[in-house]
Amino acid sequence: MNIGLDMMGGDFAPLEAVKGVQQYLAENTTANLFLIGNKEQINALLQEHKVPTGSINVIHADQVIGMQEHPTKALKEKQQSSIAIGFHLLATGKTDAFISAGNTGAMLVGALFSIKAVEGVLRPTISTIIPKENGGAGILLDVGLNADCKPEQLNQFAVMGSVYAQLILGIENPRVGLMNVGEEEGKGNLLAQATYPLLKENKQINFIGNIEGRDVLVDKADVMVCEGFTGNIILKLAETLYEISHRRQLKDEYFDRFNFENYGGTPVLGVAKPVIIGHGISGAKAFNNMIRVAEKMIEKDVLGKMKDALQ
Amino acid sequence: MNIGLDMMGGDFAPLEAVKGVQQYLAENTTANLFLIGNKEQINALLQEHKVPTGSINVIHADQVIGMQEHPTKALKEKQQSSIAIGFHLLATGKTDAFISAGNTGAMLVGALFSIKAVEGVLRPTISTIIPKENGGAGILLDVGLNADCKPEQLNQFAVMGSVYAQLILGIENPRVGLMNVGEEEGKGNLLAQATYPLLKENKQINFIGNIEGRDVLVDKADVMVCEGFTGNIILKLAETLYEISHRRQLKDEYFDRFNFENYGGTPVLGVAKPVIIGHGISGAKAFNNMIRVAEKMIEKDVLGKMKDALQ
Repeated sequence: MNIGLDMMGGDFAPLEAVKGVQQYLAENTTANLFLIGNKEQINALLQEHKVPTGSINVIHADQVIGMQEHPTKALKEKQQSSIAIGFHLLATGKTDAFISAGNTGAMLVGALFSIKAVEGVLRPTISTIIPKENGGAGILLDVGLNADCKPEQLNQFAVMGSVYAQLILGIENPRVGLMNVGEEEGKGNLLAQATYPLLKENKQINFIGNIEGRDVLVDKADVMVCEGFTGNIILKLAETLYEISHRRQLKDEYFDRFNFENYGGTPVLGVAKPVIIGHGISGAKAFNNMIRVAEKMIEKDVLGKMKDALQ
Repeated sequence: MNIGLDMMGGDFAPLEAVKGVQQYLAENTTANLFLIGNKEQINALLQEHKVPTGSINVIHADQVIGMQEHPTKALKEKQQSSIAIGFHLLATGKTDAFISAGNTGAMLVGALFSIKAVEGVLRPTISTIIPKENGGAGILLDVGLNADCKPEQLNQFAVMGSVYAQLILGIENPRVGLMNVGEEEGKGNLLAQATYPLLKENKQINFIGNIEGRDVLVDKADVMVCEGFTGNIILKLAETLYEISHRRQLKDEYFDRFNFENYGGTPVLGVAKPVIIGHGISGAKAFNNMIRVAEKMIEKDVLGKMKDALQ
């Protein structure tokens, strides 16, 4: 399998990306890596860090899309950027997955417009891993790609999240909860009220009913479903738990797990090939983890399984 | 001023309510208190705890609305319940405020249907205090009364929240932020997109723009505005921070402040008289705080100021 990695994306690129590749290769050599970016810089760093290059192809990219650039405009105008080239390689089958910690908007635009959706998917989605107090982890989706949703979309998010939880997180028969303001059926805004019966009747998932804000961090649901507005706010609030506990020197094992580096980025679910978006401040560990998630998604045919489940 | 207090509401009533009254009277005797509930039980506890009864009127109520009862049905059928009598006293002007830690739904139904809305208010709202990491506090609203909102409603929540922040929390020129998924104008779901220009043009408030999930716990906005679906999820998630840090024995000053007892319940904003709803597990301190918030709301004419600001 061939995995493409944008070496120019993120605040500490290309150095941390190179170190992440080094970590990955030290543990694992399943995938061929296509490292996309400034060839000269990348080769110098590979040499400096004595990274074995047997399974590495460096692909030169003349341009970089900055973190603050307008996604659609930048992708259109910077055809020689590492992100544009990364999607080109993915779309033409030269690679089987693409990873970047660069401009999130450009990654989303690239994923949605250069890679087709999985057959049957109404709207792709992005998710995040939420650490649970009991040591486990759940998946929350959508976390920002779809600020306004229809009930049918949430129903598909539940299916895609369940497949991901099962194959990537290793949770058998994952429990699906609908984010809501109360436990009883009939509670919630119009969207949640209309979504509940769809989830209840969906034979592809293990729906356990509504979940509330108090359930997000505890062991109640493995797949937590909502529209991207609420999900994005939960995600960004949860991320501050690590920062706050760090600032307050709490050294607590649980709050430490809110360090996003542990989870290796956010896959775009519902597009036909694995696309993984990392945080801007990704370090070596995050890059390593993202490569491993991409590898696992290819190995387990996560997207094929999603397609089957949505038939 | 006369403040009505439901003595039968909450998991530890009437004992904790009596102790709260005792705490209040030890510090303060501005208000006459109308204690509503089982007269025999209340009098016995007042005597047992040697509570001075000079500014106390005990009002007998034969019935209690249970925490799990259907709000509308219970209020209709239990006319002699402490909540029904409490609203009757408030509606007829015998009291100037009403407080209960009982059935939240019944309190909301009572507030909305027996007390008229402040002139000009489209929809009343409920809020919560969010402790900020820097030691301050902000107000988040709506937190569950209005799961679906219109932009005009959010615009009014911003005004009501600003008046409350100024007069009750003592924040001069409170900064208003719109809960959203990104900082730039134009971001968000349809509701947030349509609300932004209203807030921007509103001369009654100090609008600082969009705020994100990462801003909720830090010193960015004093008044955080959203519909009740998102707000309720944030509130219940924030409440678990106290529980989790408590379970993990972190003994952290900041996470300790998520103990709702410090904040004395949630006022219903936008109805013409102060109505304050406490948590089911309210203890003495919470009851004391709720009486003090009611007193302050009357003293500072918070609802009159809201009316003026909404003209």
